[in-house]
Amino acid sequence: MNSATLIIQCPDKRGVVLAISQWVFNCGGNIIQSDQYTTDPSGGHFFMRIVFDYDSNTIDKAGLHTSFDPVAQQLAADYAIFFADIKLRMGILVSKQTHCLLELLYRYSSGELNVDIPFIISNHPDCADIAANYSIPFHHLPTSTDTKAQQEQQLLQIAKDNSDFLVLARYMQILSGGLITHYDKDIINIHHSFLPAFVGAAPYMQAYQRGVKIIGATAHFVTEQLDDGPIIEQLIERVTHRDHVNSLRQKGKYIEKQTLTKAVEAYIEHRIIRNGNKTIVF
Amino acid sequence: MNSATLIIQCPDKRGVVLAISQWVFNCGGNIIQSDQYTTDPSGGHFFMRIVFDYDSNTIDKAGLHTSFDPVAQQLAADYAIFFADIKLRMGILVSKQTHCLLELLYRYSSGELNVDIPFIISNHPDCADIAANYSIPFHHLPTSTDTKAQQEQQLLQIAKDNSDFLVLARYMQILSGGLITHYDKDIINIHHSFLPAFVGAAPYMQAYQRGVKIIGATAHFVTEQLDDGPIIEQLIERVTHRDHVNSLRQKGKYIEKQTLTKAVEAYIEHRIIRNGNKTIVF
Amino acid sequence: MNSATLIIQCPDKRGVVLAISQWVFNCGGNIIQSDQYTTDPSGGHFFMRIVFDYDSNTIDKAGLHTSFDPVAQQLAADYAIFFADIKLRMGILVSKQTHCLLELLYRYSSGELNVDIPFIISNHPDCADIAANYSIPFHHLPTSTDTKAQQEQQLLQIAKDNSDFLVLARYMQILSGGLITHYDKDIINIHHSFLPAFVGAAPYMQAYQRGVKIIGATAHFVTEQLDDGPIIEQLIERVTHRDHVNSLRQKGKYIEKQTLTKAVEAYIEHRIIRNGNKTIVF
Amino acid sequence: MNSATLIIQCPDKRGVVLAISQWVFNCGGNIIQSDQYTTDPSGGHFFMRIVFDYDSNTIDKAGLHTSFDPVAQQLAADYAIFFADIKLRMGILVSKQTHCLLELLYRYSSGELNVDIPFIISNHPDCADIAANYSIPFHHLPTSTDTKAQQEQQLLQIAKDNSDFLVLARYMQILSGGLITHYDKDIINIHHSFLPAFVGAAPYMQAYQRGVKIIGATAHFVTEQLDDGPIIEQLIERVTHRDHVNSLRQKGKYIEKQTLTKAVEAYIEHRIIRNGNKTIVF
Repeated sequence: MNSATLIIQCPDKRGVVLAISQWVFNCGGNIIQSDQYTTDPSGGHFFMRIVFDYDSNTIDKAGLHTSFDPVAQQLAADYAIFFADIKLRMGILVSKQTHCLLELLYRYSSGELNVDIPFIISNHPDCADIAANYSIPFHHLPTSTDTKAQQEQQLLQIAKDNSDFLVLARYMQILSGGLITHYDKDIINIHHSFLPAFVGAAPYMQAYQRGVKIIGATAHFVTEQLDDGPIIEQLIERVTHRDHVNSLRQKGKYIEKQTLTKAVEAYIEHRIIRNGNKTIVF
Repeated sequence: MNSATLIIQCPDKRGVVLAISQWVFNCGGNIIQSDQYTTDPSGGHFFMRIVFDYDSNTIDKAGLHTSFDPVAQQLAADYAIFFADIKLRMGILVSKQTHCLLELLYRYSSGELNVDIPFIISNHPDCADIAANYSIPFHHLPTSTDTKAQQEQQLLQIAKDNSDFLVLARYMQILSGGLITHYDKDIINIHHSFLPAFVGAAPYMQAYQRGVKIIGATAHFVTEQLDDGPIIEQLIERVTHRDHVNSLRQKGKYIEKQTLTKAVEAYIEHRIIRNGNKTIVF
Repeated sequence: MNSATLIIQCPDKRGVVLAISQWVFNCGGNIIQSDQYTTDPSGGHFFMRIVFDYDSNTIDKAGLHTSFDPVAQQLAADYAIFFADIKLRMGILVSKQTHCLLELLYRYSSGELNVDIPFIISNHPDCADIAANYSIPFHHLPTSTDTKAQQEQQLLQIAKDNSDFLVLARYMQILSGGLITHYDKDIINIHHSFLPAFVGAAPYMQAYQRGVKIIGATAHFVTEQLDDGPIIEQLIERVTHRDHVNSLRQKGKYIEKQTLTKAVEAYIEHRIIRNGNKTIVF
Repeated sequence: MNSATLIIQCPDKRGVVLAISQWVFNCGGNIIQSDQYTTDPSGGHFFMRIVFDYDSNTIDKAGLHTSFDPVAQQLAADYAIFFADIKLRMGILVSKQTHCLLELLYRYSSGELNVDIPFIISNHPDCADIAANYSIPFHHLPTSTDTKAQQEQQLLQIAKDNSDFLVLARYMQILSGGLITHYDKDIINIHHSFLPAFVGAAPYMQAYQRGVKIIGATAHFVTEQLDDGPIIEQLIERVTHRDHVNSLRQKGKYIEKQTLTKAVEAYIEHRIIRNGNKTIVF
């Protein structure tokens, strides 16, 4: 038996679940996990994630798609099927801070993150050794105001066909709208604040100056608007008046890497569905 | 349109979701929310909660049951259907501490807990005024070692036919196995520790003596074995060496009432399924 | 033996702690608890809170002040002494939502908040019964755009000499700069978001629209700048895509009342020192 | 200016703080941070931690000790002085799981943990490469029921004079009472449960079987009684019925390494004082 995950969204109406479960049954499949959400039972939009086992001797990957196409058409649905035996390719971008990168690599090498990592890109050379330790190709693409366009061109060339999504593991460069458009796949960023508080640069300094009693970290999809994309996961940590900017940074590392890794884990398991500027996380 | 919730459990096998969604569709219903869990995809036990709208002009409550019986039989399933227009009747037992009771009554009177409260029973007279404020019948059933059996007899007489479940809102008496058996419906207790730590009496004193850095509260179903029933919800609160037993008690009140109320809320929404000594909370 | 709390701030320099502990010793006192904080060991500002026992037969309240004045002068310090046998008078302002008010009154009546409550003021009549239950004078001061100035005049007349600080327990009116200036004592507000996120009106609607995964509550001192005063305490609660505005509001109530009560508790125990736009909370 | 930390405990009585602050002043020192705790203001035991700057041109390390000895004698106090320019030597013991080790090494190499690490000892060879990466001597001391005594003998030989404290970073061997006695310095362990729940082996399996809704991790000092030593730090993570033992283990790693690192950080900063079976953590 093989395992696959169906992600589907369509206008909500009677019979949607029936149509989908009928299809799984007809394919010889067994539903293992099912989650659904509707923005509004009357006239809303319907989202569903189904994990199902199927017998690859009876029906193959193409057959699953072919057989589902008419169901999707009847439901006016967008859908995707992901197969457990095809790993997603996660490209990583990083700058100098290594804690998020190291957490991802630890989870990857211990088998907890079921991905391939085709490359690590950085605007600094510092992480080359870490990449080498894990036998992952490392690309040093330095950037400056003058060379940003050129650097993004190189980045696209490396990433476009070679990855299914990107993770900014404390990558301290703002991606241009052009790059986001051309890459045209999901990009996950970790922002070191409790968004929407402290957008932009130096959030720990901002937090220190505001005198907050809790700091946070936010994993979100990257959009053209800085730090404004759909939020995937958020975690927090208590602080006190005794904390200075430096200790905020140190405490923040725990939640930054945990938040990012949890978001990546949910992404890999296809538990995240983008819904406008929000996410559904099953 | 009316709303109902189907709770079902059966041996897991292909086609279970299909059979259930087929039935909802045949009844003219629309699935609003669906959650499922299987202990093991191959040979495990399957649990499901479906909230669906139905047209009471087309099919009535009895009709829903009648039409589902053969489905349940075919699936070898246990099931229950709850109707949104029939409120559960929640009997409350309390001793002297009022914080959990007050929280339940606040949520009840503000419309956040969709229940009826047919009675409040206490082994002390202290809460009579609070009950009167909310126009809820109050029964003072004092107890002692000698009169425990008799008190439980009175308790059963009041509670048995007059409530759908009981909540022990800091009721400091241990219910006998006989009472639990005869009442034969769910009883939810709030224990003022992070179970299984600090079972039994004076958990804050135990926590103080052990020097823990976090205290907790646990809402669980009552079974004959003290503080050993299926856990529904747990919350915690940080403490320090500065805390003495009294401040632990005061801090604990926040999480006790929050934990209990969340458990009751989940219960009323039929989001809890008992599974041996565990709970599934959708 | 009586107990008192000294709060002091002055430029940091060698010998400050010595001078203060010398004074306590000379008064026949014993230091029970001591906390200190300096913004910078070299050239910073020093803050201290000392709780000490003293023998009122040996030295009275006036004597403590008289004897400390020269110490304070030598240290160029601002200071205040609070006596455990003099309760602070806490005026409460509330609108229609009662959960914060009820929590304060529960903690007050159970002896956990060592204050007097001289009055409850509201721009709505709804809480009159609650106030009556606790035998606290209730003033209904309705307000509209036209009558705001007049209402604040009445408010000042009631509050100015009759309270040591004010608590806005979900009071949905913005206090004018004039009122804040004239009242000239501390005012604590509970804001139903994780400040500085979601300043202003309808923070739960804002949180819902932004799609955050965590909501928060913030207790802060009121300043002329809306929701911008020094933060005292913050607490959070996890939410999901399933939450609508209403369930955010319901979940938020737990942390709103807990956050506010913890802030009030710290205030009453003189554990909060304002430091510009921040707070030191010992 | 140099920095030092005084840790002191003595019977509580009037004048203790005065005597200590007088000494700091006489040494030409300036108190940077001060924390104190008394088990009971009348007749209790007093604990204090003072961080102070001193001028090493005026007084040296020996001079600080010599000058404090009579003060300590007068107060009947136990005390220790730690100097910021002398790093503690932290020996690490580990088995196969690397997440706690990696976190400690990351914090160490980034300068966040101000320690020396003289050795890593393991009963398995797996971590040799990691140790080599950080140029830390690695000792593989395999153990079995027959060789345990001999292995501990080797362990003592390596650790006794070569470390100031030991950290068990998921070391899956129980240290004998003999070893603990002979080592005679602090040993910090991370236990992968919320103690006192789930003492002993396989706590995640125990947690899974009990059906808890929160898992925890506990850093504590090692004593002869298994998992019963003074608790230093505890952290928790929410789980659900969906979690199996494996996902509990994966989720637990975040809090295990965070809990252990926080405990080590507090230890290195001399913020922990053992008080019988409890800890004071300033």
